[in-house]
Amino acid sequence: MEIRNTQILMEKDALARHLGIKLLEIKPGYAMGAMEVRPELLNGVGVTHGGAIFGLADVVFAAASNSHGPVALALSVNIQFLKTTELGAVLTATAREENLTRKTGLYRMEVRDQKGEVIALAEGLVYRRSGSQ
Amino acid sequence: MEIRNTQILMEKDALARHLGIKLLEIKPGYAMGAMEVRPELLNGVGVTHGGAIFGLADVVFAAASNSHGPVALALSVNIQFLKTTELGAVLTATAREENLTRKTGLYRMEVRDQKGEVIALAEGLVYRRSGSQ
Amino acid sequence: MEIRNTQILMEKDALARHLGIKLLEIKPGYAMGAMEVRPELLNGVGVTHGGAIFGLADVVFAAASNSHGPVALALSVNIQFLKTTELGAVLTATAREENLTRKTGLYRMEVRDQKGEVIALAEGLVYRRSGSQ
Amino acid sequence: MEIRNTQILMEKDALARHLGIKLLEIKPGYAMGAMEVRPELLNGVGVTHGGAIFGLADVVFAAASNSHGPVALALSVNIQFLKTTELGAVLTATAREENLTRKTGLYRMEVRDQKGEVIALAEGLVYRRSGSQ
Repeated sequence: MEIRNTQILMEKDALARHLGIKLLEIKPGYAMGAMEVRPELLNGVGVTHGGAIFGLADVVFAAASNSHGPVALALSVNIQFLKTTELGAVLTATAREENLTRKTGLYRMEVRDQKGEVIALAEGLVYRRSGSQ
Repeated sequence: MEIRNTQILMEKDALARHLGIKLLEIKPGYAMGAMEVRPELLNGVGVTHGGAIFGLADVVFAAASNSHGPVALALSVNIQFLKTTELGAVLTATAREENLTRKTGLYRMEVRDQKGEVIALAEGLVYRRSGSQ
Repeated sequence: MEIRNTQILMEKDALARHLGIKLLEIKPGYAMGAMEVRPELLNGVGVTHGGAIFGLADVVFAAASNSHGPVALALSVNIQFLKTTELGAVLTATAREENLTRKTGLYRMEVRDQKGEVIALAEGLVYRRSGSQ
Repeated sequence: MEIRNTQILMEKDALARHLGIKLLEIKPGYAMGAMEVRPELLNGVGVTHGGAIFGLADVVFAAASNSHGPVALALSVNIQFLKTTELGAVLTATAREENLTRKTGLYRMEVRDQKGEVIALAEGLVYRRSGSQ
């Protein structure tokens, strides 16, 4: 039931649609999504924009952190860029819960290219509103 | 001359255009830009998407870190979300150089709303390719 | 009164004493401290240990974040190391409040050497327990 | 041979000794260490000091990142504190290489208590000096 609410919440995510991000799976404390690198996702030197990679990581982060009920508020994200990718690349991202308390949640995101190589790693912290469980 | 090269580089930034980001100023070690929160930049709960805010911060980060010559490669960014904003908000972001060595550069980004309130803070680290000066 | 409570709290900080950290000033949302780099604070290559620099930043962070009442709990810290220092260096650190909500606080730490050069920058986030104000 | 050099480097780590940190294993891209929480490692509220936990994570980070030859320079560390521990706790920390390029290395640190529960997670980035391989 809560997962269904999370799906409804995520379907309303306009930026995800604008970037071509597809959310493929949501389970308690976990989410997975994908994004194809289209021309509008490139930066000035012609590789995938850091903002697009962050966007993908942020969407699975939001889905995973709201999977227990839709009330998580992102406080901070730390992202590490490991490898550049190019036009046509298909990126997948996962978010996994590393810690959950009554008030906070910590999530680990991995972004991979179509060869399965990790291209970015991120860590995201949320504050969970009272009554969020 | 280098600033002009940086401007040319940034004009090719497709994601910046896709998100409606305008780069308003580039100086050595500094950049400033703006973005209006249009419907496609919202998340599922109807506030400005973290990915859009990061995108704006990332664009001024790229401009500032490439202002000495276009060769900086983002290694990591840490972003703190302080305040939500809504449809129609006009966000401005600055990037300022905090440290520059032969091989690395550190930048501080501030994102503000139209009232001048800070809504996000970020810190970005780049690797500078050899010959980059 | 709250500042006095914070001072009492910080005087009990055993690690600060063990590292030779002196807390020199506490005001609401602000703290300043200093540490001399003694032999026991060096790393294997003979420069000031990252752990000692973090320790100094962490002590002023704790003082500033507890300056409104002693109940802040550190969630995360992001530290950037900019410059090495050596035996005999005198390091000073400040923590300034960047954001304060009912439930969270964000602090910026700067560590400088005796010449006033910034050697490390950090950002720390706390969770504030209910009733903490 | 390089591991032996790394061991010699780490044996000279004065802060590790001052905090009671024991380095138990170094392999290429990996290190493990332990620390008992003695009275001098506590903070003002009587739990293990964030600076001590960071110190332990930083020592295994240094060992792992120098395991390919002693030339890695820490650029940044992001640490998340998940759980408090108390006097007498025995903490263990591991550092694992997540990415290695000619110029940078990324490491993941996990700190656990004697029950095996994760109490802190950290991510550390190093710059590798030329000729470091």
